[in-house]
Amino acid sequence: MSPDQLRDVLEQVRHGRLTVDDAVGRLAVEEDGNLGYARVDLDRKRRCGFPEVIFCEGKTPEWVEGVARRLIGAGQDCFGTRVSDAQANHLQGCFPTAEQDRLARTFWLPVAEPSVPATGKVLVLTAGTADLPVAREAAVTARVLGCAVELIADVGVAGLHRLLKQRDNINNADVIIVVAGMDGALPSVVGGLADCPVIAVPTSIGYGAAFQGLAPLLTMLNACSASVTVVNIDAGFKAGYSAALICKRMSANRE
Amino acid sequence: MSPDQLRDVLEQVRHGRLTVDDAVGRLAVEEDGNLGYARVDLDRKRRCGFPEVIFCEGKTPEWVEGVARRLIGAGQDCFGTRVSDAQANHLQGCFPTAEQDRLARTFWLPVAEPSVPATGKVLVLTAGTADLPVAREAAVTARVLGCAVELIADVGVAGLHRLLKQRDNINNADVIIVVAGMDGALPSVVGGLADCPVIAVPTSIGYGAAFQGLAPLLTMLNACSASVTVVNIDAGFKAGYSAALICKRMSANRE
Amino acid sequence: MSPDQLRDVLEQVRHGRLTVDDAVGRLAVEEDGNLGYARVDLDRKRRCGFPEVIFCEGKTPEWVEGVARRLIGAGQDCFGTRVSDAQANHLQGCFPTAEQDRLARTFWLPVAEPSVPATGKVLVLTAGTADLPVAREAAVTARVLGCAVELIADVGVAGLHRLLKQRDNINNADVIIVVAGMDGALPSVVGGLADCPVIAVPTSIGYGAAFQGLAPLLTMLNACSASVTVVNIDAGFKAGYSAALICKRMSANRE
Amino acid sequence: MSPDQLRDVLEQVRHGRLTVDDAVGRLAVEEDGNLGYARVDLDRKRRCGFPEVIFCEGKTPEWVEGVARRLIGAGQDCFGTRVSDAQANHLQGCFPTAEQDRLARTFWLPVAEPSVPATGKVLVLTAGTADLPVAREAAVTARVLGCAVELIADVGVAGLHRLLKQRDNINNADVIIVVAGMDGALPSVVGGLADCPVIAVPTSIGYGAAFQGLAPLLTMLNACSASVTVVNIDAGFKAGYSAALICKRMSANRE
Amino acid sequence: MSPDQLRDVLEQVRHGRLTVDDAVGRLAVEEDGNLGYARVDLDRKRRCGFPEVIFCEGKTPEWVEGVARRLIGAGQDCFGTRVSDAQANHLQGCFPTAEQDRLARTFWLPVAEPSVPATGKVLVLTAGTADLPVAREAAVTARVLGCAVELIADVGVAGLHRLLKQRDNINNADVIIVVAGMDGALPSVVGGLADCPVIAVPTSIGYGAAFQGLAPLLTMLNACSASVTVVNIDAGFKAGYSAALICKRMSANRE
Amino acid sequence: MSPDQLRDVLEQVRHGRLTVDDAVGRLAVEEDGNLGYARVDLDRKRRCGFPEVIFCEGKTPEWVEGVARRLIGAGQDCFGTRVSDAQANHLQGCFPTAEQDRLARTFWLPVAEPSVPATGKVLVLTAGTADLPVAREAAVTARVLGCAVELIADVGVAGLHRLLKQRDNINNADVIIVVAGMDGALPSVVGGLADCPVIAVPTSIGYGAAFQGLAPLLTMLNACSASVTVVNIDAGFKAGYSAALICKRMSANRE
Amino acid sequence: MSPDQLRDVLEQVRHGRLTVDDAVGRLAVEEDGNLGYARVDLDRKRRCGFPEVIFCEGKTPEWVEGVARRLIGAGQDCFGTRVSDAQANHLQGCFPTAEQDRLARTFWLPVAEPSVPATGKVLVLTAGTADLPVAREAAVTARVLGCAVELIADVGVAGLHRLLKQRDNINNADVIIVVAGMDGALPSVVGGLADCPVIAVPTSIGYGAAFQGLAPLLTMLNACSASVTVVNIDAGFKAGYSAALICKRMSANRE
Amino acid sequence: MSPDQLRDVLEQVRHGRLTVDDAVGRLAVEEDGNLGYARVDLDRKRRCGFPEVIFCEGKTPEWVEGVARRLIGAGQDCFGTRVSDAQANHLQGCFPTAEQDRLARTFWLPVAEPSVPATGKVLVLTAGTADLPVAREAAVTARVLGCAVELIADVGVAGLHRLLKQRDNINNADVIIVVAGMDGALPSVVGGLADCPVIAVPTSIGYGAAFQGLAPLLTMLNACSASVTVVNIDAGFKAGYSAALICKRMSANRE
Repeated sequence: MSPDQLRDVLEQVRHGRLTVDDAVGRLAVEEDGNLGYARVDLDRKRRCGFPEVIFCEGKTPEWVEGVARRLIGAGQDCFGTRVSDAQANHLQGCFPTAEQDRLARTFWLPVAEPSVPATGKVLVLTAGTADLPVAREAAVTARVLGCAVELIADVGVAGLHRLLKQRDNINNADVIIVVAGMDGALPSVVGGLADCPVIAVPTSIGYGAAFQGLAPLLTMLNACSASVTVVNIDAGFKAGYSAALICKRMSANRE
Repeated sequence: MSPDQLRDVLEQVRHGRLTVDDAVGRLAVEEDGNLGYARVDLDRKRRCGFPEVIFCEGKTPEWVEGVARRLIGAGQDCFGTRVSDAQANHLQGCFPTAEQDRLARTFWLPVAEPSVPATGKVLVLTAGTADLPVAREAAVTARVLGCAVELIADVGVAGLHRLLKQRDNINNADVIIVVAGMDGALPSVVGGLADCPVIAVPTSIGYGAAFQGLAPLLTMLNACSASVTVVNIDAGFKAGYSAALICKRMSANRE
Repeated sequence: MSPDQLRDVLEQVRHGRLTVDDAVGRLAVEEDGNLGYARVDLDRKRRCGFPEVIFCEGKTPEWVEGVARRLIGAGQDCFGTRVSDAQANHLQGCFPTAEQDRLARTFWLPVAEPSVPATGKVLVLTAGTADLPVAREAAVTARVLGCAVELIADVGVAGLHRLLKQRDNINNADVIIVVAGMDGALPSVVGGLADCPVIAVPTSIGYGAAFQGLAPLLTMLNACSASVTVVNIDAGFKAGYSAALICKRMSANRE
Repeated sequence: MSPDQLRDVLEQVRHGRLTVDDAVGRLAVEEDGNLGYARVDLDRKRRCGFPEVIFCEGKTPEWVEGVARRLIGAGQDCFGTRVSDAQANHLQGCFPTAEQDRLARTFWLPVAEPSVPATGKVLVLTAGTADLPVAREAAVTARVLGCAVELIADVGVAGLHRLLKQRDNINNADVIIVVAGMDGALPSVVGGLADCPVIAVPTSIGYGAAFQGLAPLLTMLNACSASVTVVNIDAGFKAGYSAALICKRMSANRE
Repeated sequence: MSPDQLRDVLEQVRHGRLTVDDAVGRLAVEEDGNLGYARVDLDRKRRCGFPEVIFCEGKTPEWVEGVARRLIGAGQDCFGTRVSDAQANHLQGCFPTAEQDRLARTFWLPVAEPSVPATGKVLVLTAGTADLPVAREAAVTARVLGCAVELIADVGVAGLHRLLKQRDNINNADVIIVVAGMDGALPSVVGGLADCPVIAVPTSIGYGAAFQGLAPLLTMLNACSASVTVVNIDAGFKAGYSAALICKRMSANRE
Repeated sequence: MSPDQLRDVLEQVRHGRLTVDDAVGRLAVEEDGNLGYARVDLDRKRRCGFPEVIFCEGKTPEWVEGVARRLIGAGQDCFGTRVSDAQANHLQGCFPTAEQDRLARTFWLPVAEPSVPATGKVLVLTAGTADLPVAREAAVTARVLGCAVELIADVGVAGLHRLLKQRDNINNADVIIVVAGMDGALPSVVGGLADCPVIAVPTSIGYGAAFQGLAPLLTMLNACSASVTVVNIDAGFKAGYSAALICKRMSANRE
Repeated sequence: MSPDQLRDVLEQVRHGRLTVDDAVGRLAVEEDGNLGYARVDLDRKRRCGFPEVIFCEGKTPEWVEGVARRLIGAGQDCFGTRVSDAQANHLQGCFPTAEQDRLARTFWLPVAEPSVPATGKVLVLTAGTADLPVAREAAVTARVLGCAVELIADVGVAGLHRLLKQRDNINNADVIIVVAGMDGALPSVVGGLADCPVIAVPTSIGYGAAFQGLAPLLTMLNACSASVTVVNIDAGFKAGYSAALICKRMSANRE
Repeated sequence: MSPDQLRDVLEQVRHGRLTVDDAVGRLAVEEDGNLGYARVDLDRKRRCGFPEVIFCEGKTPEWVEGVARRLIGAGQDCFGTRVSDAQANHLQGCFPTAEQDRLARTFWLPVAEPSVPATGKVLVLTAGTADLPVAREAAVTARVLGCAVELIADVGVAGLHRLLKQRDNINNADVIIVVAGMDGALPSVVGGLADCPVIAVPTSIGYGAAFQGLAPLLTMLNACSASVTVVNIDAGFKAGYSAALICKRMSANRE
């Protein structure tokens, strides 16, 4: 709250136009999401435009359920990632109407009004077949956040013609997410063909000197194309989320 | 070129509406930027929206000059990064009208018509004072590519009030670039306050276990805020470039 | 033993005020904790103020039991950490009255007189829910060593308001233990708010470029707040122990 | 500010006991330390008990001077670390009365009233002679913050008798700072002899597989003594600062 | 396609010697191997001389089957590597006539005419017995690609006479593949004895500071013999493939 | 074979004192230990003083059995290390009279005459209880090679008195093997007390920043005591073997 | 020497057809290249087909000169790599007729008859301009060893059309050397276009997370194209040498 | 001092056979080597058999001089390693009769009676010419400690015949020190030929993936020969010291 806003509130209190209780409410908004083992960030939607997303790793199924119920109780959409099989089964019993994607390991239970039709186009490319789960996590995330998403698999650089046939898709995209393991070379090439931002996701696919994704991570950070930014290894969710933020901003500014 | 486009060209050739020479020209566009030691990518502007940028490290001053002349000769804007002192002095002699920023280590010589007024707002934040050169590289890049840029230094998390006073700037930005060395914690915090994409730039500022930027790089890749993507250590240019791509897309879609 | 102390003993021997046997006893105290597979450090309590703590990893349940019995036999409190399920079950049979915390993986069997009421206040904060087991290990340890402990979970920097609401707790603490995985950014922020020592515990929570805790470890070592010291990854016990040493010293000096 | 404190301020405004301007002042304290290239954290002293310390690396001599003048202008003590020779000479000209320690690379210009006599005793031990500069930085820092400090050099574990002769010093210390490069084994041994907190500082002294301090850093993080916490490589300042916080708390609680 | 070739096609179209459809066919060959989860590179054989090889890791048995059927349907030989037990059993049911080598973890189903007799001689050497699976993958690959292969196991440098007895084999080879884990010293020695290219394959055999193959990988990259090139850890397939390319070129150039 | 020795053999051939066949035998000794999957180095005993030792990791039980039978068939002692449970059970059936130590994971089947009584004394020390299996591997190895061995466990540096009580053992040893995980500080201290060679064995005991033995490995390589040499992580066998070589040389030179 | 060859020599000695001295000469060929500080491997040419090459790093100019004189004295061609400026100037004085390439840092003084015309074609590609010195080292090496070499610079993947225009060169090559720093993505793409062996050379060009060539090294080891083998960072010489071995074998087998 | 020894001293005091002062002298021997910046370990010779050796890195020339004077003053031999040029020149002035080896960077000033003739034979081998400085440090050290030393350079594994010609030297040695950079393969081969302990010294010679000696360090730790122990990178001194300890023990036991 800026000093000007603050002064305004105080002036209202001084002149009796605002009760002290209301002023406390405005100055010290209490978003009470405390569950003991978790403090659900019910203010996230207001600040960042989307409710808190549940990262399920390292949580018991009951903890995940508890956070989900708290979000839903607050009338907010509930999205979970990295849902294990045990968690998925537990959540299936609790929330039978939720959409679960077992390949992407996501959980989706919207309660708010559906968002307006997406205006941005997100293109998700994978270098190989084994990169699909991470790519699907990215695609589901972007879709849940309101984007139009197209996912095209297995267009790695060892067979360039497969990629070059996607030129129209590349030209039409607003953001491109490139998912690749092993040498992680695809984003450099895509970045040289596209005029939109490219978000690169290294995957832990590969063996030996891939070092569980370290190799493609370094490749992507050193991409010779300037339009490439990078997220964590296997972080499909982050890529989808950032892509959606870009699309959302486009829409926001259109008005 | 898609099969349909190809068929169209061939039909024109077949019916004599296009000479064979013209068809060769359209099918095999020769962008001849070959200088022996470099092949200037004169097609980059068409493909990616901005001419090739000269990464000056590891090049002799004469090589840099040569590439610059080739770009200018093709009527394209010329932007160089990581300009060493020796290169800067050499270029000063060759191109006295160019804008050089010695802190950012950039070289800027526009020859095309100035681009339309920027519509996107880029906010560049630094954690500390020593991060300024990298931040300036990011800021100059985004500005050169047509964005409105604001650079605010030294708002690291050890004194949160300095950052919280920037809330209005954060809320108004279309993209935020966060430049930080040492612990690299700032992007996580900014990502939790903003509703726009955050591009994090780790710097090699720090000592000991900072390992020349490895520590903040890892921090940023693991940022708990989903809106954070990352570029290479000290890669101010890449951050500025990607930020500009986002702003540009916003403008493009507005029409 | 200093030369002066030594001289004193010898003078007593010389003058017959101390028998040779007693002098041997004083000069060569034999703390015989040898079990073959372990030498229990029965002198630790005298030297360091607390009996040896059993680090259970890599020991058979029988070995743990043996060390525990030796400590108890010497009239010393018995505290074990990193107790596996198999060890926990075995110890449950041997020592049914011991307190076990399966989340913290601790074992606690006090035999000495309870220590005086704690005077120091230890605040344990976690960045996320999945950091809870490590945080609990820290909290149990500090409590066992006589501190007053408060544990507050899930106040990571992506939602600053959750942390800022703990300002009173932060201001009242004598030591703060901050437990965080992923980006490990929380201690930097807490260090900037507090005027007491902050002990940071990186956890192996996270994935990809978190590299099993390496990322938060580096972040914390590079914390921009000067008040932050660091312990090993997942080393909740060490953090609790060091925190207790600080509190204990405060009490000692008060007298 | 807690809701209760907030309510109190607002009640005073409502009843006219506090003017709006004063309330703004109290609710939105403006610590204006903005110099463009730096935002001096003039509130640090209030929050953390000691003014902002200037980390001089990566700053021009003029920037360091500017920050120093801003601190002094606000009536706060000015302490700088990692002062390069060029900076030292520049500062010598600007502030001839300041104390500079060229071995420790520190700058100290107190302007506030001298603090009360130190009550805590800090013992600084080094494993070797070459660790002295880092140890001196720690010692100067702790002294500047009001502690009684003793520095004993070259008591590494290859000659245990040198260390064992320090037993009285070890027993009398409130905090021990252990500075060591190469194998970094000293803190483990000291931790086994002392009953107070031990802060370990790895140094970049050594060669080959010491990897610029990585080896002693890892050794110290894995110290088998539970009382050891660790700071960054060569971070004498942090060790001194944390040690002083512990001593200060002891004094604070004594009253 | 070069401009000259292009001009030639266009001239034929212009003069009616080539229909537009045929020209489209030649200019935009559509190798449609799209299976959704995979795009089989049916053009690989034409470009690189051998059909796409299926890397089976990270694929479901059904995906592997699908790619295999697509290759076979296109009349191309089908070779798979890193076949898991589950995949092997599934493929056994689908393609009972295929050759499977469970030690090498390969799958081989030739459908094209057998290639001409091999002219090149590939010698595969292993340092130890445990390197056999990787060596077998190399040997099978080279054999499938038409080479004569000899595999000699357990001639590590700790018993030089075992290696020196292979001198005739070494002298007669056209390419030597050396497979070694642990210290990875064998390629350096073989490189000093041979006058042909040596391809080194580090394996993940070893423990401790072998770091899953990192140690032999670095050894081999630093081999003091200039004739040694290296492939990824455990990458028997790549070594066999590259060896076969060398042999094939020898044959091609012989004509 | 030196030129002089060679000349001697040839002179004998020339004068008919040596048949050609015998000369072939002497010049080209054929130690035929080829089993296909392994080439048993039957000459090792002559060259290095002890038969080949079977490193069992990565071998099938049948392979281990085969190598063992080949050694025994050649009248050589058979010693195996890193014997897995499956291998141990298989070997138990094949060679019921062999000595197996399941904690050390060794297999020992002597067939040659027992060696002369050991003259060298090997002292094996461990820092902790969990280092015992590696220490036992070292102790068994040295014993099998003819040394007198004493193994003393759990004398880590956190309780120095436990180590200092071993002074007589330390002074009487000919070689000391120090086995330690975590901080790996023990060899530095032992090296400062002893006047004989110290062989340090890092173990993978520990957690977090121990990085599976990397931390103690680096510590030991940087030991401030000059008498410390190091072997691979968990390489108890190597330490025992090298210790025995030292003892053996002492005996050899005594005559 | 095989048993059969040995038997033959011995039979000749026995029958007086070979003197003992000659036999010694044949069985114990003394290649005496001992200079004290170096043992020049004068037998290398016979064994490996090319004389020893002088790696100049870490040698004094006099040492390099000494080795060069010894090679030349033995009538062997003299080739040196990594020649520093000081060494180059010294050698210029000693051997004014030698060819020196200061960019490639090579020294070449042939004394033997020129080799037969090259039959193999080596194509050297670089991703960027700054990779030229390493590429030149590779090109000079291959040329010196008798290959026809073409070097094409700056065809990195960010501008694919630059590479695709080299298709004819790629198709006609017998071996392709690809030199790239930063992301190291070029070999993967070239491998997918070529049907000959590809030797990848990572360079230390780049910054930040390129880690002095580690990033492109890992990329290349993980190349998704099976035809790619890798040499050490900046090892242009090794790549050129291996390429020449492949070409030489082609020629040898042609006869 | 053991309890028995202690009892003995005390009995003497009790019966007046030992004055209290003498007893203090025997029980609390004061080896006063305290110089402020260093505590010279004057007891080292008694404990470990050789006086403290001065590691000169990181010390001022004056500090080195001070330690040297203290050793000499105590009648002990003075040996220094890693002497920089500046230190060497300073020491030359102070101690003109000392032996300095500028290649090995050692300083040697014996003041005690020369030791008895050496009985052990140390063989120092280097893989390349550039490894000579480290090898010389090892050789000088072993010689100073009384061993007979032979140094043979440049017998790396790329030309095995150079090594095999040293067989007699290898067979006659009591300890072999192998110094190698780059691939570090030599110790594995030597270990397979020798029946005595092999101490391996990795050097920082090499480039690229040698990573300043990391590659040969890992190679040597993973040596397939069991007789190889390893010291720090470039640690010629440690290798020479440990070799001398082995030789000394041989002599000691001979009596």
